Parts: sequence; C-alpha cells; structure tokens
Amino acid sequence: MDILRLLKDLVIPAETKIVLLVMDGLGGLPQQGNGKTELETARTPHLDRLAKTSSCGLLDPILPGVTPGSGPAHLALFGYDPLKYRVGRGVLAALGIGFKLQPSDVAARINFATVDDRGRVTDRRAGRISNEENTRLIRLLEDIQIPGVKIFLRTVKEHRAMLVLRGGDLSGELADTDPQQLGVPPKDIVALNPAAEPTTKIVRQFLDQARERLADEHSANMILTRGFDRYEPLPSFQELYGITSAAIAAYPMYKGVARLAGMEALGAPGSLAEEFDILEQHYNDFDYFFVHVKQTDSSGEDGDFARKVSVIEETDRWLPKLTALQPDVLAVTGDHSTPAVLHSHSWHAVPLLLYSRFSRPDAASAFGESECARGCLGRFPTMHLMGLLLANALRLTKYGA
Amino acid sequence: MDILRLLKDLVIPAETKIVLLVMDGLGGLPQQGNGKTELETARTPHLDRLAKTSSCGLLDPILPGVTPGSGPAHLALFGYDPLKYRVGRGVLAALGIGFKLQPSDVAARINFATVDDRGRVTDRRAGRISNEENTRLIRLLEDIQIPGVKIFLRTVKEHRAMLVLRGGDLSGELADTDPQQLGVPPKDIVALNPAAEPTTKIVRQFLDQARERLADEHSANMILTRGFDRYEPLPSFQELYGITSAAIAAYPMYKGVARLAGMEALGAPGSLAEEFDILEQHYNDFDYFFVHVKQTDSSGEDGDFARKVSVIEETDRWLPKLTALQPDVLAVTGDHSTPAVLHSHSWHAVPLLLYSRFSRPDAASAFGESECARGCLGRFPTMHLMGLLLANALRLTKYGA
Repeated sequence: MDILRLLKDLVIPAETKIVLLVMDGLGGLPQQGNGKTELETARTPHLDRLAKTSSCGLLDPILPGVTPGSGPAHLALFGYDPLKYRVGRGVLAALGIGFKLQPSDVAARINFATVDDRGRVTDRRAGRISNEENTRLIRLLEDIQIPGVKIFLRTVKEHRAMLVLRGGDLSGELADTDPQQLGVPPKDIVALNPAAEPTTKIVRQFLDQARERLADEHSANMILTRGFDRYEPLPSFQELYGITSAAIAAYPMYKGVARLAGMEALGAPGSLAEEFDILEQHYNDFDYFFVHVKQTDSSGEDGDFARKVSVIEETDRWLPKLTALQPDVLAVTGDHSTPAVLHSHSWHAVPLLLYSRFSRPDAASAFGESECARGCLGRFPTMHLMGLLLANALRLTKYGA
Repeated sequence: MDILRLLKDLVIPAETKIVLLVMDGLGGLPQQGNGKTELETARTPHLDRLAKTSSCGLLDPILPGVTPGSGPAHLALFGYDPLKYRVGRGVLAALGIGFKLQPSDVAARINFATVDDRGRVTDRRAGRISNEENTRLIRLLEDIQIPGVKIFLRTVKEHRAMLVLRGGDLSGELADTDPQQLGVPPKDIVALNPAAEPTTKIVRQFLDQARERLADEHSANMILTRGFDRYEPLPSFQELYGITSAAIAAYPMYKGVARLAGMEALGAPGSLAEEFDILEQHYNDFDYFFVHVKQTDSSGEDGDFARKVSVIEETDRWLPKLTALQPDVLAVTGDHSTPAVLHSHSWHAVPLLLYSRFSRPDAASAFGESECARGCLGRFPTMHLMGLLLANALRLTKYGA
C-alpha cells in the first residue's frame, strides 16, 4: 500500500494551519565524550517550554544508519518515501532558481572551469568567477543549436550554472563529466543505461560546441556537468493533502525541493528575521508553512560547534514570533543530523517536537536529543511525520469501518 | 516477505496459553493540558503491579497519524496487516450475528427508514423500531426472488438488519444507498468499479421489490443499504499459528472480526463479570483468548472522561480473576485510542503491557501512556504484537540457521 495514496484517501478539509520549522542538520553529537550535543548545549528557553507541552520523539530520515542528502531528507519531511521518490541535484538546482521545468526536461548542474593546453582540468571552479562574468559566458553559449532539442542555460552563482534540455524522449541517466580532481581531462559523457545512449549524443554535441566557443576565454575555457536528472513532477501537497503550502527558505536548493512538492517559495529572505517576517506577513494565505533554517547545517559542516549552538539560540529567540501566530500544529525538527565533530551530514536520528491541542504530553522536559528519546512518539521514519501533522490538524478521517 | 507467512513457517507446538485483553479505545488524552489521560487518572492497582513485571510499549494501530476503524484495528491485533487485509462493515455485521457466510457472499447492512410521499427520507432509522417490528418487516421481504441469486435477510437490532447475496460472481464494490441526510431520496445503487455493474442490477431489483412490499407499511416504508462487502475468508489462527482460539465479547461487531480469524465466539456476555466468568469456564478449552471490553470506547466517544476512567477501574478490579488463571502470556492493550476530549477514535499510540515468564522488565512502573513510552518494547505497529505473543508463549522456533 502506498502511504501517500492512503493519506490522500483519508484527507478531509479543515480550517487549520500547520507550521514545520526545519533547522537543517539539527541533530548533533557532544564535542567531548558524555557531554552535550549542540542542541543540548544551546540555551533554548522557548523551545524547552514548548517541548514540555509537546509530544517528542526521534526521526530517522531514511533508515537507521543511512545518512541522507538534503533532497531525500526533505522529501521525507514532506511525506514522500525517499527510497521511492528520487530527485537529482540538476532538477533541484533548476527549481531552486525558479526555472519552470516541464515534465521530461533533463536538468544538470554546470561548473565553469579551466583546462590547460592539453585539456587537463586546472581549476574545477574557474577561480569562482563573478556572477557577471558567469552571465557573460552564458551569453556565449545560449544560442547553441541542436536539432530537436531546446537548450536553456542560466547563471546560478559564481562558477555555477544550470543546463536544461527539452524535447524528444531524453534520459537523465547520465554520468557526471566533472572528474572531481585536477590534472586529468573532463570525463566523456557516458550513459548509465542503454536507453540513455541517444541523450549522450545530444549532450556531447552541446559540450563540443561549448568547448569551441569558450576556447579563447581566459576566465573559464571549459564546462563540467553534474547531477543529470529528468524531471518527473511529484504529486503536489494540494493533490495529496488538499492544502495550500508555502516555503520560506533562503537557499535555492530548499526552495527547489519545496517547489517540487508544489509549494510556493515566498520572498528572498536574507536572515532569520526576514524569514519570520515573511511567515507573519503571509500567515493568512496558506494552510501549511515550511520554514527552513540553513546555518545549523553549514556551521556543522564547518565543524564549528559554537556557531551551530549560536544559530540554534538565535532560532529560539525568534520562536515567540512564530508561536504568537498560534498555529494549530507546530513541529520543530531537522532534515538530518550534521554533528560538528563529523564536519558532515550523519545518520543520527533527529530530535522532533510536535505541538498541537491534541499532542499527548510526555516525559521530555526540554528540546534535545536525550530528552526526545524519552518522548511518547518514539523513534520513527521521517516520512511518517506528515501523517502525524495532518492528523493533529484534524485533516484525516478514519481508516476502515 | 509476508509476515503471516513468516510466522506460519516458524510456528511450533506448545502447551501454553495466551490471553489478549483489549480495552477498546484505551489510549487517551488529558482533559486539561499537562494533566493525565483517562488511563493515568484511573486507579488501577492490579494493572500497575502487572506493569512493573511486564514489558511495556506503545502500539501504532496502522501507521503514525492514521486513525483506524474497529475492523482494521482488530485485524492488526490478530496479526493481519491492516493495509493488506480489508474487511467491510457488511461482512463484520453478518459474522457478528453469527450468520454463516460462505466465500464470495456479498453482505451489506440495512437500515429500515421512512420516506415521504415524494420519496424523500424523513427518518433514516424509522424511529428505531422494535426488534419485533423489524422481524415482522423482514418476513415481508425474505421471499423476494431474483434469478441466480439467493437472498438472506436477518434482523440485527432495532432498525438494523443484514442483507446477504449468494451465487454467481458477485462484487462487493458498491456504494451506499443511504444518503446520510434527510429531505433527499435514497441514492441509486452505484458500482464503484465497472466489474461491479452486474451486481448493481441484482441489488436494484431487490431494492425495487423491497420498496413495493413496504409501500403501505407505517413503521418503515423504505430500506437503506450500507457497507457492501464481499466475504473472502482470512487464513485462520489455526492455520497460521496452530492454535485454538476463542473470543469473549459482548458486541456483535467484535465477535464478527474474531470469527473472521477463525475464533469461536463464546456465550453472550452482558457485563464484564460475565466475560470473566466465561473466560474461567472455558479456560481449558482453547490456547488463545481474546477478551474485549467495549465501554472504554463508547464512553470515550461520548466524551465522558469520568465514565471511561471508571470502566478502566472496573476492568482493573476483574484482573485478579484473570491472572489467577496464570496464563503463560498476558497482554493488555487497546485496539486504538478514543480520547474523551476528541469524542472519537484517534491516531494516538496505544499503551501495551506484555507479561510472561520471559518478558524483560523495564522502567515502566505503572500502566499508562507516559510510563509505556519508557517501556522496553518501544513503539511499534500493532500487527507485530501477535509475533511477540507467540514468541513469549514459546510457540515460535528460530528463523534461519
């Protein structure tokens, strides 16, 4: 039984609002043995007070032991089985910058790079060229013509750009041409299965023409491609859950994954203050809000325990602005763990706090990994959180007689 | 891998007895924030003492967030995957009154109702006519003849009756004719998929003839049908688990779902006292007993927190009579939660206590939702309880070499 199909069958209308506050990479580890995690070290009076009247638990983003990327981790938060619904970086990048992908489009990420006179990569990021230089180079490439296929190119940021191919029966099953090391030439474009062979021919033509056009450029004389993926729209929040939904996120990647679920990405927040302002301004316009805090993850990836603590504390200070809106259901969690001691995403379960009028209180008396382990929600796969949010919002009817 | 198939392969004989005591709708919520649930409010010295030496945990009847009806919730308690095995109300109603359904029979529930001279429903329950009047009306209908099909009609209670169709390749995929509101005519009988079209013709003939025969009756001049379902027998407890099994339940619906699993429904208990008497009398005759307490659910549905507390306390008072029998395995739980504050079934996890000589003791020091959240069984889907019961009864061998 497909879980999404089950939820869809059970959905009923209601006048309730759900807010999901995601602190990216929230879960952590103690810096010293037996010490406290980043979240447990942070002074979070508002989250702790909320935890006391909430149901708490721990989420497994994918499966015990499996460390997720941001894409599958967020798909799971939105109720999609991350082992069934897979979305590549190319598609997320395109959606992230607001490019209107059409079904069956194939998208990839591009790096502008430099190669020496024997074609060996000397800088995979072309010295992080400026956005302006990126745009100038894109203009050199954007009228490349390949019969039967439309090509779209967009500047993303610095050395990064987006390629989209449209038309015919294209495949996204293509390997990266980025060799991920210096001193070797870019890889040839290779199909990951036989059905993708025709698409390799198209991409190869594009790459050949791009190389010719960039040959005499000094800032970047090569492009590298990564994360090819074919866009197949997911069933949207509106279709599945009968709710209007919005995302408040500063980073393109998270806007992308939210748009994949049919959310509207609101504004261009540059700070937490702006994110919570946008939430307040649009609070009457949607049933569901996904609010994304990025810096918990990036500080964790930098191995900066203290900065991660301080981002959590800053988020806590903004919490009263959120709770003042009195959402019917409020969940606070992460998409995955990013312990500073690991400098990376990890497999550790993620603390969860779920508040509604009908959330059963439990023994968890603060918001932290150890306290959440005592919570009444136990430990469960992230993909089931969406059902709990809808249930607490009284948006699901009974299953069976 | 089908779980039932797995258990079946592992079953070995033993001389042990299992008792599953189900307090329907047991799980609850505090009436005031941060207070205690119905179960935590109730004075339950016997259950609390048992919990101290038991393994405790929390059960998810279907999936986190999914509120079950009684049918799927009980199927899960009996080890059947409630998303795979689905049973409609018609079949449960027929089995509940002891009607001997045959495979492929189609069963539905009937309401006697009244309509005005333009055919609009004026009372969906015909003033809750007496059982005697119901029986008289059934007699007017029971010799309706439809070629190729045998028709069975039985009085259930007050305005409720049962319809069973037998013969040919009938479908249960039919919508209700009960419009669920007054002032409109009954709905025409409609197929829920094309394969059910031939069955609609048969049901329509029956309904037309029933209307004619009831036209001049004053107590009820119409019938409404609901919960059509085709009976496909489940693999029985005997086949699956190699055990003889009995149900002790006051309400037809629960006898029905127990019979579906091949249990014998014992006696006609009218009180908890009579249920525990029946258990004692038949204790030597079966390996497994399902004892069902209904009033925890009905008091919850009535929103009567205090009455639910008192039903739990009454059950606790009878517990010594059960434990005196010294069953090898005793589990106490609910089929789902019915918090009085919600006046309905809910999605909340259900407290579980599992006692055997081999149940690992844990931190749970009383029987309640918060204590069970600290238990060593954690939180798991109800359908896996059956395996645990069999294991504790030393009725399962090792999986694999």
